[in-house]
Order: sequence, then C-alpha cells, then structure tokens
Amino acid sequence: MQRYFVSDAQRTEGFFTITGEDARHISKVMRMKPGDSILVCDEAGQTFLCEIQENNETNVFCLIKENLVETNELPIKVTLAQGLPKGDKLEFVIQKGTELGAAGFIPFESERAIVKWDTSKAPKKLERLRKIAKEAAEQSHRSTIPLIHDPQKLNALIVSSQSFSHKMVAYEEEAKHGEDKRFARLLSTMQEGDSLLVVLGPEGGLTAEEVDILQETGFVCAGLGPRILRTETAPLYVLSAVSYQFELLKR
Amino acid sequence: MQRYFVSDAQRTEGFFTITGEDARHISKVMRMKPGDSILVCDEAGQTFLCEIQENNETNVFCLIKENLVETNELPIKVTLAQGLPKGDKLEFVIQKGTELGAAGFIPFESERAIVKWDTSKAPKKLERLRKIAKEAAEQSHRSTIPLIHDPQKLNALIVSSQSFSHKMVAYEEEAKHGEDKRFARLLSTMQEGDSLLVVLGPEGGLTAEEVDILQETGFVCAGLGPRILRTETAPLYVLSAVSYQFELLKR
Repeated sequence: MQRYFVSDAQRTEGFFTITGEDARHISKVMRMKPGDSILVCDEAGQTFLCEIQENNETNVFCLIKENLVETNELPIKVTLAQGLPKGDKLEFVIQKGTELGAAGFIPFESERAIVKWDTSKAPKKLERLRKIAKEAAEQSHRSTIPLIHDPQKLNALIVSSQSFSHKMVAYEEEAKHGEDKRFARLLSTMQEGDSLLVVLGPEGGLTAEEVDILQETGFVCAGLGPRILRTETAPLYVLSAVSYQFELLKR
Repeated sequence: MQRYFVSDAQRTEGFFTITGEDARHISKVMRMKPGDSILVCDEAGQTFLCEIQENNETNVFCLIKENLVETNELPIKVTLAQGLPKGDKLEFVIQKGTELGAAGFIPFESERAIVKWDTSKAPKKLERLRKIAKEAAEQSHRSTIPLIHDPQKLNALIVSSQSFSHKMVAYEEEAKHGEDKRFARLLSTMQEGDSLLVVLGPEGGLTAEEVDILQETGFVCAGLGPRILRTETAPLYVLSAVSYQFELLKR
C-alpha cells in the first residue's frame, strides 16, 4: 500500500490533510478515489491506515482508521557523516542508506574532499537530498524519513558527536593492522535504542590527523573487512551489518 | 600498489608477461619503469610481488619476487543470481558486489524481469560486465576476479545450483511472515570454504511459482530485514552480512 509522510500540522482530530506533490500523486498518478486506503506516517514515526474521504489535486482528506504498530526502523539509530564524495554519490548514499535504515546523514566537509560544498547552492541541494530521502523512505516502507543535516566541518562534527551514545570512524588502514574486529566488538556493546555516529572518508580517505582527532574525542577506529571499499559502498556495509546484527541475529 | 590480473598462459618460469590494456596502463598511464614494483594476481587467486624488468605499451615483463599470502577473499564463496534489472543496475550490482567480495554473478532471466537479455548483443554485454568486475577487483584489492556466467533461465539455474553447498532465495514476503531470521540461521550452518548461491528477484520481484520451485529444489527462502530493499540493494546487503559474520564476528 502506498505510504505518505506528513507533518504534525497536517493532523486534525481523527484526520490527516495531505497537500502539495503528495496530493497530486494520490489523485493524478495513483488515481485514487474516496474509499481507497493509504498509509500515513507522522513525525513521531507512527504509521496509520487511513481511508480517503475527499480528494483533488491539491488536497486529500483522509480518515484515520487504525494506528499500525510497525517495526521497520533499525533498532540502532545510525547517522552517517559522509565525507563529501564526487558526482552524484552523495545522492546515491542517501537513497541506498535510507533503504537500509539510516536515521540521518551529515555531509562532512573533510580535509581531502575534492568536492567543496557551495553555500550559495546549499538550500537547493539540501532540498534535493531531502526529497531523495523521503522517496526512498516511502519506497522501502519506513515509518520515518532520515534527517539530512547541514554540512559540517570537523570541529562542528565533534560537537555534534556528543549527542550520540556510540561513535566510530571507518578507516581502511585499520583492517591492514589486524584491527578488523573492532566494528563487531563495538556493536556487541550496544543495545536497542542506542545511537551510533559513523564517520566515513571521501574518495581520498581521511587524513591521519583527522583520524587522530576523532580517536582523541572518543571515536572507535574500525575497519570494514579486508577489501578496500569505495567511499559510497562503505556506508552500505555499515548499515547492512547493523541490520544483520540487530534484526536478523538478534542476540 | 597497483595490481593486475593475468591468465596462466602469461606465466613462464619466474616471470609474468602482461599484455594488452594492462601493459598500456602500466607504461602510459602509470608511467612505470624497469625496477618499479607491481602486484600480479594469477588464476588460482595467488598474489605476487613483482619487479618490472622491461616494459613498453604492448608488453611488460616482470620478475616474480615474492608470493604474498593475502586473505582478501570472502571465506564463503557467494554467487549472486540476479534477476535482470533495468538500466545500468546490473553493472552497478557487479561493481559493488565485486568490492564486497562476490565469487560470481549469474544474470537470471526470471519471469517478471522487464529487461530481456538480447542474445545478439550478449558477447559484447558480457565482455563489458567482465571488464567492470576486473576493474572493481583491482580497485578493492581482491586476488580473484568474480566469474560472470552466461545468463540463465530458471531450469538452467536449478541445474547450476547443484554445485553449491548452500542455496537461498531472498524473498521479501518472508520478512512479513515473521521468517526474518532464516538468513542468519543459514549462515550459522555454514563453514569457511562453503559455497552459497543467492537468487534475487528483479524490480517486480520473483513470482510465487518461481519461489515454490526454488524451495522444492532445496533453496532456503529468507528475508533481509523488515525494510523493502530495491533489487540492486539486496545483493549488497547479503554480501555485507556474510563479510560481517565470517570476517568481523568470526564465530
């Protein structure tokens, strides 16, 4: 069943009002009519089975029929601080990372990032990234849309990191030093509801200084297996492993 | 250090002769000279440290200095039978799947695949897919290049499956039926050196009949967590989970 995300402002006693592009999607693309059912996800991550009462291209009024108790969200809230990659790879990481259950993304302006974040284009760029996250959340049947944070440099990232219960930096050199089990060990110390911030380098990797500073501020430095993963593949490995550990193995 | 893959025919007592595009890459792109070192991977998956003795744009003669004992290959040989996806997604699966350690890929002509395999273009297409696998293997520091098999329909796939020690079909409906731990259970029965064939549907998914036939012929039907993954994301989840289980957790 098609699902749509709404803000708290779109709810009134027993009803949701869906507007904008989603209203157009329901009425024109899906050609839905009064009596048809949709799923509506609110800001708190709750999913409701709703019945359309009245709809046109700009507004869809729907009656809340049932609060569905869904558990499609990763038990660990994983935020990826992704070193700015080239081309459309940030879009790719956000689309695939959303499918795989990420709670949020921080575009990380790291030392060796070839791409510079153009502040004049930032609002438009962030809007585009948020749209990608929303669509991927709908498609993958999530009940929350991951947060896309404003881009951060190292100092800001360290300040942000204080709100996470666990912190890790993915660093491929570690795998070569035999320290390839730290990621699994870190996950073994975590419990459902914990939050994890994972820093990932851009194409050129993180500098040794960046890794040192992150380690000094409490980040665990961990490898992701013996093969060298591209910057856009590493975050997908992290999320898949967290899902496997907490959703399939379920210690 | 740059690595190159060679066939057995390119080896003579104590030497490798690198030809074709790789010779051009070494001499023109990397501008390497006699005395420079490269890594050479043979068909058996062994990696050798070699020193260039003589080189030009068509031939590079290099002396074998040392047989390096590398362990960059996944301990479980995973072959992905990927339902033919749209656009360039098969290329994507092969590139990312190679990074993540796949042993091979079978383009699977499943019932609901929108893309049809054009046999007249097949040789060129397979050549292109093999090139992508080779480049991704070099880049991710693998010591073997995954095999790209000829495309197979269901019957041929079932015949092929007999050579695998373990077989699984990824089926998202299973997650909804609470059978979301079968993948982890299957991995728990496997040991290093075992082989796993994983069948993944195309965009429209597998048909219930295909799933039934696969189950009847010994495939375990397993979900990959509660979120709905796109056809090109599911194989990356499988490989990441196998790596996490056998390389990081190392039971």
